[in-house]
Amino acid sequence: MTETYRSSTLQAPLALDGGGVLTDVTVAYETYGALAPDRSNAILLCHALTGDQFVASAHPVTGKPGWWRSLIGPGKPIDTERFFVICSNVLGGCLGTTGPMDIDPDTGKPHGLSFPVITIGDMVRVQKRLIEHLGIEQLFLVTGGSMGAMQVLEWAARYPEAVFAAAPIAGAARHSAQNIAFNEVARQSILTDPNFHGGRYYLHDTYPRQGLILARMVGHITYLSDDAMRMKFGRDLRSGRFHFGFDVEFQVESYLRHQGEIFSRNFDANTYLLMTKALDYFDPAREHGDSLENALARTRCNFLVMSFNSDWRFAPERSAQIPT
Amino acid sequence: MTETYRSSTLQAPLALDGGGVLTDVTVAYETYGALAPDRSNAILLCHALTGDQFVASAHPVTGKPGWWRSLIGPGKPIDTERFFVICSNVLGGCLGTTGPMDIDPDTGKPHGLSFPVITIGDMVRVQKRLIEHLGIEQLFLVTGGSMGAMQVLEWAARYPEAVFAAAPIAGAARHSAQNIAFNEVARQSILTDPNFHGGRYYLHDTYPRQGLILARMVGHITYLSDDAMRMKFGRDLRSGRFHFGFDVEFQVESYLRHQGEIFSRNFDANTYLLMTKALDYFDPAREHGDSLENALARTRCNFLVMSFNSDWRFAPERSAQIPT
Repeated sequence: MTETYRSSTLQAPLALDGGGVLTDVTVAYETYGALAPDRSNAILLCHALTGDQFVASAHPVTGKPGWWRSLIGPGKPIDTERFFVICSNVLGGCLGTTGPMDIDPDTGKPHGLSFPVITIGDMVRVQKRLIEHLGIEQLFLVTGGSMGAMQVLEWAARYPEAVFAAAPIAGAARHSAQNIAFNEVARQSILTDPNFHGGRYYLHDTYPRQGLILARMVGHITYLSDDAMRMKFGRDLRSGRFHFGFDVEFQVESYLRHQGEIFSRNFDANTYLLMTKALDYFDPAREHGDSLENALARTRCNFLVMSFNSDWRFAPERSAQIPT
Repeated sequence: MTETYRSSTLQAPLALDGGGVLTDVTVAYETYGALAPDRSNAILLCHALTGDQFVASAHPVTGKPGWWRSLIGPGKPIDTERFFVICSNVLGGCLGTTGPMDIDPDTGKPHGLSFPVITIGDMVRVQKRLIEHLGIEQLFLVTGGSMGAMQVLEWAARYPEAVFAAAPIAGAARHSAQNIAFNEVARQSILTDPNFHGGRYYLHDTYPRQGLILARMVGHITYLSDDAMRMKFGRDLRSGRFHFGFDVEFQVESYLRHQGEIFSRNFDANTYLLMTKALDYFDPAREHGDSLENALARTRCNFLVMSFNSDWRFAPERSAQIPT
């Protein structure tokens, strides 16, 4: 990585849910707007599995414009003339925050798969430190979609005094067996790619391209409901007729291959593995007698829960399980 | 393949839907019970993607007992004391019927991926020839599940005079975009496995094991509904606690890896590719103004359509679309 990201380094070591400790944790983040003198106007955005901190500004590597620029900016729904918007790359990420691509000080080589397996709780703990570093006691709003929604729930459960409003979007309070199953296929695709080299592909001047493509193809299927796929693609053919071969025939095949291809160029495979594990482990009810109500009992924040009919993986029923 | 299967060889060349012609087509099949003197008691079973002809007798390679032995035998629901039951390995299969493992007479090497891409119509055309060879004019019943159900529909549409009763089980009249999407992930898993060698793995003394495992894992997810997976596995852990690593944590992971592993040992990858294409192409309504009613207009057979609530890929709604 030659790119330099705006970042902050945590002063104290970070104890992880899995038992390890990380020292010298760097958090890469972007901000938009200005913090009010009374520090009451801060909004934290939590990004999804394959997201990043560049919500309203161009991605420095791909050049793509911010992924939520339609919602964030002057005069937009999250108005940066009123609010101070913060988004940080999650722990274990591949865009500036400490993650598997970084050099392990003990070995002088990239962590790779020896980077500790982290949790949504670990991610949020790092975000809390960043917020403190910025001098903010209470966030006006924490919001985010999918894996971001899990971080929002973790914030509300873990730091009830630090959140005024919480808006989990297209989320779930835990992964179902089916969610875990799809993640496991994605992980096995990457782990068994011959170019994965046990996670040390950085040292072999290669990366598990095919594994990442397959993982992303599986992921994309789960982002769209059966109905949404029917409306978007149906049985449309790319060239209007069958060719009786293994090249692309149906539009949906073309779409999936293309999405996988693009994704594989700009995302780190070890980060993908870590994110899927964090998603699978997340289950705040587990430590509270299997009750999400109990897990969220201490929170006093205002909730706005949003979901989409066209989302299959985290359909509206899943959001409806979140007590608010 | 050193195994010898009971089989019959078609006398005339077989023209394929995709345009090619196959000569010397061999059909491997098993029968149970005896054909009545008036030949009115024949039941044809059509097997699914990964099935075979050994419905009520042991698989000669794996030693597993027949896959439908609970339903077929003396005094069983399909009573072999009354009925003559036939099941043939489909065209393109890997258990005795002509398929990609066979030697291409033009090259002296296995067909591999140069075996023609076949359709459900081609499979059924071969079955019709077998039935004629056995001297049967009309089948009392044609039945089968999943890909077998598609063959049942093809029989009813294509040979209406040759079918008295048709019982498609857990079927669909065509694949949805989502069905095609999952098949495409399975295909790409196999096609991009470094041991696939463009389908000529037979000559390299290897086979695309990982690709087959991934393909089967994806397949298995689609065989179970979200609810069925929740009841079967939930979030159960294999050892009761998290290990924060990439070994199996959840029972559902263990199940999928195991299913993939077993499957990869005994199924030919080129056959798997061919079967998924045949499934995706199948669409009898397509040639009849997008109307399945029109496609089945000429049939006079009696229908029994069955499906399962726990089946996700071909859920009961899909069967309900079949006009009877």
